[in-house]
Amino acid sequence: MHGADDRHRVPPGDPIHLADHAPDDTGEMRKSEAKKELAELRDEIDTLQRLLYATQRHALLVILQGMDTSGKDGTIRKVLGGVNPQGCHVTSFKVPTAEEASHDFLWRIHRAVPGRGMIGVFNRSHYEDVLVVRVEGLAPEEEWRRRYDAINAFERNLVESGVHIVKCFLHISKEEQRERLLNRLEDPTDQWKFSVGDLAPRARWDAYMAAYEDAVNRCSTEWAPWYVVPADKKWYRNLLVARLVARTLRSLAMEWPPLEAEAVGISIE
Amino acid sequence: MHGADDRHRVPPGDPIHLADHAPDDTGEMRKSEAKKELAELRDEIDTLQRLLYATQRHALLVILQGMDTSGKDGTIRKVLGGVNPQGCHVTSFKVPTAEEASHDFLWRIHRAVPGRGMIGVFNRSHYEDVLVVRVEGLAPEEEWRRRYDAINAFERNLVESGVHIVKCFLHISKEEQRERLLNRLEDPTDQWKFSVGDLAPRARWDAYMAAYEDAVNRCSTEWAPWYVVPADKKWYRNLLVARLVARTLRSLAMEWPPLEAEAVGISIE
Repeated sequence: MHGADDRHRVPPGDPIHLADHAPDDTGEMRKSEAKKELAELRDEIDTLQRLLYATQRHALLVILQGMDTSGKDGTIRKVLGGVNPQGCHVTSFKVPTAEEASHDFLWRIHRAVPGRGMIGVFNRSHYEDVLVVRVEGLAPEEEWRRRYDAINAFERNLVESGVHIVKCFLHISKEEQRERLLNRLEDPTDQWKFSVGDLAPRARWDAYMAAYEDAVNRCSTEWAPWYVVPADKKWYRNLLVARLVARTLRSLAMEWPPLEAEAVGISIE
Repeated sequence: MHGADDRHRVPPGDPIHLADHAPDDTGEMRKSEAKKELAELRDEIDTLQRLLYATQRHALLVILQGMDTSGKDGTIRKVLGGVNPQGCHVTSFKVPTAEEASHDFLWRIHRAVPGRGMIGVFNRSHYEDVLVVRVEGLAPEEEWRRRYDAINAFERNLVESGVHIVKCFLHISKEEQRERLLNRLEDPTDQWKFSVGDLAPRARWDAYMAAYEDAVNRCSTEWAPWYVVPADKKWYRNLLVARLVARTLRSLAMEWPPLEAEAVGISIE
């Protein structure tokens, strides 16, 4: 990734203020440039995913968080829509089922972690357990407060086991969310996405931003840093996430596995 | 789907001979025509998948079977590589794990059936339990013989529950498999796919063809017919599977769900 993008990284142990991160930041790029680079990155990600699958040594886990309409679905589609569906598994975490709720908060998450060779995408994740749970008071404070450390330890074990983690907070402005909600109300192919219930978190916007700020600060680690991705402009959001995915896969320096020894010089009858 | 393609359908209750189905059949199409149609179908499938997801009433299950190198992976990539990975889940069935083997043969299959709104793809499936299991003698004859009826009843329940099933046997010739295996031996980006162990089923080709013939004849039903897809030409194979997928989704006559009643006339603060 371009070193310039590291300004979106939350430095471990050096808390940021979300207010300093403009949701409409576009890195002084032009949309046409960004689209061209994204197309190239998609091709590269496609090849790197095949290598990931062939080598069966690493996994990639992409975690997407953000307010409603911030573009979690769109990012998945635009960044990973070109990879072989066989090598990419998306998990959308909803309100926990009765069975999930009968376990600790990481139980259902752990089951969905990608195996070696796979790209896994979490559309929402265990971070909901320090976001909506905190803001809506769904667990006592001492419970959600202990979770930051539990998350860091959980993710550390994954990374030490070959699961590379990319965490993106898709950061939109309250104004941009209004535009997108109005669009959902009007576009007949988008109306099904609109739910009056989604307006409740919007009414508690500041409390959510405070919870997000704590989450990215408490859980940005050397092994799994958070990125605050400006998401008012979809094309810039997609580009940044694609760069992070490509950079992470590229860093694995994978090579095509050689022919197995028994097969050398074999003839096919 | 073009009515002409129905000659690839195995008529329920009217057994076919695989020998009458030429693996190099191309339906008198030109490759360029087929590629153009495939591109159009991919776009249509992408839209239909969004509708499937939006309406949450139906699921689509695509079952791919075929000898090694017949192109199960390639078909998934070429036919479904354009759909949102969030709405498409591929399951590759391998040798059963100890836990899977401790259950009946449909247990692990049932767990992987797509939920409403989803496209599921089975790369191999419960049909292995009347194919490899039969040819390699992994279960007694009375066990695998009873499975045809069990499969038909299982699939019927799925169809009656809104899961639409497309079953494709990717039919290649033994000669074409030889070419593809030789290619795997030579291409550095494909060598990882070659396993000497894969030559054993090749050595029992005729027994496998007999098992496939019985499977498609015994399990082609009105609710879930089998298609014998000529697969020596990848471009024709991809086109036929794409047509089947598109035709099935199209037949659901889905429409964009309207705005929920509470949201009509709402304003966004």
